[in-house]
Amino acid sequence: MSKGRLVIISGPSGSGKDTILKEALKALPEIKFSISSITRPMREGEVEGEKYNFISKEKFEEMIKNDMLLEYNNYIGNYYGTPKAPVEKVINEGGEIILEIDVNGQKNVKEKVDSALSIFIMPPSVEVLRTRLTGRGTDSAEFIEKRMKAALYEMERAKNYDYIVINDDLEQAVQDFVTIIKADRLNIQRQNNIIDEVLEKC
Amino acid sequence: MSKGRLVIISGPSGSGKDTILKEALKALPEIKFSISSITRPMREGEVEGEKYNFISKEKFEEMIKNDMLLEYNNYIGNYYGTPKAPVEKVINEGGEIILEIDVNGQKNVKEKVDSALSIFIMPPSVEVLRTRLTGRGTDSAEFIEKRMKAALYEMERAKNYDYIVINDDLEQAVQDFVTIIKADRLNIQRQNNIIDEVLEKC
Repeated sequence: MSKGRLVIISGPSGSGKDTILKEALKALPEIKFSISSITRPMREGEVEGEKYNFISKEKFEEMIKNDMLLEYNNYIGNYYGTPKAPVEKVINEGGEIILEIDVNGQKNVKEKVDSALSIFIMPPSVEVLRTRLTGRGTDSAEFIEKRMKAALYEMERAKNYDYIVINDDLEQAVQDFVTIIKADRLNIQRQNNIIDEVLEKC
Repeated sequence: MSKGRLVIISGPSGSGKDTILKEALKALPEIKFSISSITRPMREGEVEGEKYNFISKEKFEEMIKNDMLLEYNNYIGNYYGTPKAPVEKVINEGGEIILEIDVNGQKNVKEKVDSALSIFIMPPSVEVLRTRLTGRGTDSAEFIEKRMKAALYEMERAKNYDYIVINDDLEQAVQDFVTIIKADRLNIQRQNNIIDEVLEKC
């Protein structure tokens, strides 16, 4: 059996990472997605257990106390975190699990799980990013500037990732993501057992 | 411009690495192939400048003296080596160049070029390897045993490589090889400049 892999995907708002991930998971349905635990209220269109488990602040703080989180963050009074158990289960079974987290989360996870594979989704240029964020048409200029600033902060930290996918053409970006995952399955870190298996039979 | 990459392919006799490489280069015609300099006589079917440059012992020793080789070996009185200049040229231009060398060559190159990407082609089992080597039908049992021993020596060193491709199904193995090369183009080591380019325009 090949070894499992924890995969991190990050990218600024407007990078298209949600769409890429959604399409890539169609091509790689065997990959698991890590459901984050969060304490903020559910928004319209969100479904419990899809991307998030909506839990109480008390329950979250109990998870912190019991070391049940791989990483967590507190953003404007709300907690966001990755529960440890489902990640460990998938990895131990030789599978892959994807964490959709930001650059701070990636840094925290990498410190604990050095073998984590991290992929950063990048817009083709800052202009394109601005156009994408403006194009939504619903946000104020001030809000867009805030998002642009946050995006630049994230993009400057892209160098800490293992792979960069430029989302210029969506189809190509999805294919690039899938290619990275498929190549990783051939990586020596995951194939070590297989060498033993081939040699054992002699 | 993305950074170049030196790619090493190895695998025992009977692993099918020549066929995989030939087919993969059809899918990736932009990749350069490193032509080895050797001092043994040309064999039937070999063409000067295709896989090898056939040169004199004197010329080879001059290349050694002038530090013109990335790696070299002396096998039963004949020299085999990789000239430095063509490799450096391709890498500096941001391209990829493939070296088809054995496990000792890989060790030597990795010591000099830490960023080299190395791929080991593995038969699916020792039995299959034996069948492939026996199947040629032209070799003595003694010669086959010698090759099997050499193959096992190589395969035990597969753990020193970055990627393992199992050649069970040829088409899949070619695809795996191509996938590794394509994913590598998205690796941060080669994309660092691109992050700067995206951010520079802002």
